[in-house]
Amino acid sequence: MHMNYDLVIIGSGPAGLSAAVYAQRACLNTLIIEKTGVSGGQILTTEEVDNYPGMPGIGGFDLGMKMREHADQLGGRFVTGEVVGLTDHGELKEVSMADGSTITARAIIIATGASHRKLGIPGEQTFAGAGVSYCATCDGAFFRNKTTAVIGGGDVAVEDAIFLARLCQKVYVIHRRDSFRAAKVLSDRLLSLENVEVLWNSVPLEVTGEGSVSGLRVQNKLTRDERLLDVSGVFIAVGMEPDTALYKGLVKLDPTGYIIADETCRATTPGIFAAGDVRTKPLRQVVCAASDGANAVYSVQRYLEEGPQSHA
Amino acid sequence: MHMNYDLVIIGSGPAGLSAAVYAQRACLNTLIIEKTGVSGGQILTTEEVDNYPGMPGIGGFDLGMKMREHADQLGGRFVTGEVVGLTDHGELKEVSMADGSTITARAIIIATGASHRKLGIPGEQTFAGAGVSYCATCDGAFFRNKTTAVIGGGDVAVEDAIFLARLCQKVYVIHRRDSFRAAKVLSDRLLSLENVEVLWNSVPLEVTGEGSVSGLRVQNKLTRDERLLDVSGVFIAVGMEPDTALYKGLVKLDPTGYIIADETCRATTPGIFAAGDVRTKPLRQVVCAASDGANAVYSVQRYLEEGPQSHA
Repeated sequence: MHMNYDLVIIGSGPAGLSAAVYAQRACLNTLIIEKTGVSGGQILTTEEVDNYPGMPGIGGFDLGMKMREHADQLGGRFVTGEVVGLTDHGELKEVSMADGSTITARAIIIATGASHRKLGIPGEQTFAGAGVSYCATCDGAFFRNKTTAVIGGGDVAVEDAIFLARLCQKVYVIHRRDSFRAAKVLSDRLLSLENVEVLWNSVPLEVTGEGSVSGLRVQNKLTRDERLLDVSGVFIAVGMEPDTALYKGLVKLDPTGYIIADETCRATTPGIFAAGDVRTKPLRQVVCAASDGANAVYSVQRYLEEGPQSHA
Repeated sequence: MHMNYDLVIIGSGPAGLSAAVYAQRACLNTLIIEKTGVSGGQILTTEEVDNYPGMPGIGGFDLGMKMREHADQLGGRFVTGEVVGLTDHGELKEVSMADGSTITARAIIIATGASHRKLGIPGEQTFAGAGVSYCATCDGAFFRNKTTAVIGGGDVAVEDAIFLARLCQKVYVIHRRDSFRAAKVLSDRLLSLENVEVLWNSVPLEVTGEGSVSGLRVQNKLTRDERLLDVSGVFIAVGMEPDTALYKGLVKLDPTGYIIADETCRATTPGIFAAGDVRTKPLRQVVCAASDGANAVYSVQRYLEEGPQSHA
């Protein structure tokens, strides 16, 4: 199998699906490669998405399906398979698939997304979407006037805790060290909040509950004391891992592994574009990924018309 | 009347409405000021929006209403009125209203949008949304295999014509000068297309039709000859005008009047943010404006927590 396209989109989360919509409308000969045969990406496992403007309270799976149907209606061509390599031959890019086939295209949009780093403790997977969350901006509003715990000590964890403290009755912060890695102004702000209790030198052991989260068992690493916190939400903010291992030699990544690209979605190699959570950006939300899909295709169109100089 | 808010959002198009959704979810004490009492902005006059991912073929008015309802459901507080001034007092910003009242807020999101420059010829307004369009990316797909005309000679006009030439049977380009102002690589590309006919030194006189567009009457400025082109779509690309006159002294504008801000939506004055079509950005689409609303509120949250240093 050897096929040549104007554009190959790798990934079918909101960024990839939005890019598919825009590419079809621009009449680009496009193929979308999805890994699992189910479109939607990270939102597939999100119980409710309440911040995609115009669709209050939609289920994550349903939103993924609606975006997929949109691309389908416009004639989007999808294939299921695992990408194992991407080679830049200048005007042509070659995608190697796990089944040994190759696909060539003039331009590539990498929309492989990112995933939240897991703790790997009992109950974490069981209660994912039922009290365990990896995104306070996404899910915080479901825990108004309740008690929650945030796990982590970096910028995101501290920002999440400040954000949750405005909504929640009480917020515990569990951090394995004795100080935050977050910016001082953020840490100071968090520590000044009356409804926040920080458990230093502590690690989470288990998320407990029945049907949904009711507690978090934590241990102080110094004293070995254990404590069961009475919480209905556990926000895990121990980092993200972008799915970029395959593209390390092809485009520049930032120190945390994200593909370096601004809002035009142009990566550092002409003809290669990065859309959605996989690129360097201030905020990772469904609507921001969908916006990237539009911007990436706009940049692809310019690249296909004007050549590499559009990619400066 | 004198009220103090965390955040005032000026404008209720997709950027302002998305910002309202995010601000409500972040529990910011927020007021949204809209000029006309009807939310939606530019899409209000758009017959069909087919590129807001997940909502294929929705009417522009309906999409505006859905976004407004989303903000309403979360408790968004709207007021109708005309902003006549915005003053920066450092930690507080003061919004002056036409009725003489003032509103103060710690942060302001300017989401006043932009409007397409009009030609002012007979038929232009009559057939707006019924064959006359100001956005090829938005509406081009409705003219597949039909004949269209593009009016203008800058980058956007030439890009629009190239884009339409892929979809349409034939594309006329009407330009009042004898060469394009667009980038040479774009102009060369356009002139190489077989289904494109450029009418140099020509001006449009009238859009004709019954119910929808059927023709465009044009005149050659040198010979004075008139010609009636048989077209079903007229794309007017003679520039945009951002609604920023009020903010000229407050934040830096680019030479064409847009508020200078990157995807974080931070304008050059701490505490002032610009979201949607009103800011400098590569692509102006509904989903991109909605993404800006999310990014702007995220930046506002950081500004409110961390102060002006977040605004570097």
